[in-house]
Amino acid sequence: MPAPFATLSDFRALLQALPSADPAATAAAEERNSQLTKPPGALGRLEDMAIWYAGWRGVARPALERPQVIVFAGNHGVAARGVSAFPAEVTVQMVANFRAGGAAINQLARAAGATLSVHELDLDRPTADFTQGPAMTEAEVVAALSVGWHAVDPSSDLLVVGEMGIGNTTPAAAIACALFGGQPGEWTGRGTGVDDRGLSIKTQVVAEGLAANPDRDPLEVLRCLGGREIAAMAGAIAAAHAARIPVILDGFICTAAAATLAMAAEGALDHCIAGHASAEASHRALLSKLGKQPMLELGLRLGEGSGAALAINVLKAAIACHSGMATFAEAGVSGA
Amino acid sequence: MPAPFATLSDFRALLQALPSADPAATAAAEERNSQLTKPPGALGRLEDMAIWYAGWRGVARPALERPQVIVFAGNHGVAARGVSAFPAEVTVQMVANFRAGGAAINQLARAAGATLSVHELDLDRPTADFTQGPAMTEAEVVAALSVGWHAVDPSSDLLVVGEMGIGNTTPAAAIACALFGGQPGEWTGRGTGVDDRGLSIKTQVVAEGLAANPDRDPLEVLRCLGGREIAAMAGAIAAAHAARIPVILDGFICTAAAATLAMAAEGALDHCIAGHASAEASHRALLSKLGKQPMLELGLRLGEGSGAALAINVLKAAIACHSGMATFAEAGVSGA
Repeated sequence: MPAPFATLSDFRALLQALPSADPAATAAAEERNSQLTKPPGALGRLEDMAIWYAGWRGVARPALERPQVIVFAGNHGVAARGVSAFPAEVTVQMVANFRAGGAAINQLARAAGATLSVHELDLDRPTADFTQGPAMTEAEVVAALSVGWHAVDPSSDLLVVGEMGIGNTTPAAAIACALFGGQPGEWTGRGTGVDDRGLSIKTQVVAEGLAANPDRDPLEVLRCLGGREIAAMAGAIAAAHAARIPVILDGFICTAAAATLAMAAEGALDHCIAGHASAEASHRALLSKLGKQPMLELGLRLGEGSGAALAINVLKAAIACHSGMATFAEAGVSGA
Repeated sequence: MPAPFATLSDFRALLQALPSADPAATAAAEERNSQLTKPPGALGRLEDMAIWYAGWRGVARPALERPQVIVFAGNHGVAARGVSAFPAEVTVQMVANFRAGGAAINQLARAAGATLSVHELDLDRPTADFTQGPAMTEAEVVAALSVGWHAVDPSSDLLVVGEMGIGNTTPAAAIACALFGGQPGEWTGRGTGVDDRGLSIKTQVVAEGLAANPDRDPLEVLRCLGGREIAAMAGAIAAAHAARIPVILDGFICTAAAATLAMAAEGALDHCIAGHASAEASHRALLSKLGKQPMLELGLRLGEGSGAALAINVLKAAIACHSGMATFAEAGVSGA
């Protein structure tokens, strides 16, 4: 099945026509929430999460039973510049680890009752070094968006997208800086653990990438400064929106991918909630720019979708309370 | 089976002889953690949680399969003073709701794969109004501690204790103020939702209770200012420690119960982790006094063990990663 877009222009038009949450379901969920056997507001943010989820699923009393986790893997030209603590061959080694079930995301997806699929995007063909020009051609970025779009199972009722790509906090920082301004150093961090020298190189590489790619159109930013797995995440997040499948965003790289959508079309991330704030300090800044408050803050900085997968069970619990609790009338409990 | 204590003095001696985590298992878990296929520290606090749990369970690669949630219910003489937004009969109504499966804790325990048991403590016989003297006699507090002690299933591998007791943020605030000092107003909050007048009454009641019960010995504080469900939680937390069963602490009232143990015997809460910081502002202050950092912060203020039950799946995920992930050697992944 072809993707419903053949160019970045098509994809932009698609983003601008995405659906909203169902206002009737949202209102019905709010009404139900007010009747449940607890003091008003006593479940805190769990209440907001359940109502948000109900609106996107279009039912007042939803279930969350078929979460899907997808990990996209890509390689980056800029990895050759020494921006990561790990060698580039780790991307393909970790893909093998995902397939064998040995990575953190395997354990976290299983613990959340989620399916896990892994998509490698041309690992033997890294993107171009963006300090020398665009990371991808339009055909390449559209192909990656399309991989993401088609990876989403339309029968799932929640999506988590994660990534693996040695060096990919560098394109994520470049994207964030291109979209939101500020100095490159404000958006770069230690990623998987670079030392001071690595951090300095990374900041320099981001600055060079921004200079070499001056177009600040959000989808051009994705093409010129992103990577295949980053574009695939964006494609999957958009596909979920089209199918009214809520999304839990993961860390800095996932959020940078999502940010290109948000800047390309207002409301493009209304179906997304932030799973966690990672230890990468710029992630919190990026979430703040997007108006997203993280569900968890446990110092994770792994990627793979790990923080978002960890948050699935929190969202499940919110929905279990919302849809499973008795009302004051049903339980014969006196109100306040 | 009789409890291993017949007096508060016996209970104090028992607390002072509780076991420590297994240092060999802790060291073996730390070593295993360093070999897993992720950058060092990339799972953040999940790594610390798994190592802590391994130490208490005495195995380098533990499983968490039999979590137990216990809710204790009690009634309070001070409820007649107008310290709650809800009438006192709600305690027994909510116990019926727990038994019927309609409360938040029922949904949260099920979502965590935990057993749930409910213990009512003399609901038709509230504790004495502590503004007039001790809330409980020694026989009463020992009986409540004993209910908690015996409620713990020694075959469980994690414990959450919660409570239901209209008015019980007031004794919790009195306990916190008696143990840690400061002004009553620093430890009182809106609980399930009292208005300004209710909050003012509550603060006054705490002040009167502290004046009427001047003994600051931690277990005397529990007897004079606590309640039956609060003492039962303390008894259960101590029983879990004796059996090396880790505990996730819930909100302000549970933490106040736990605090009496911590002040009675150093290390009495080493087997405890804080599940969440509630919306009751004094809960964060109390956790800070105990040196505990919350796992979650989602604005819950329900009690029932809800915040701790929500945290069970996070701890499960931490242990699933620790015990399930491949090592670098097993997966053939290059290290940093």
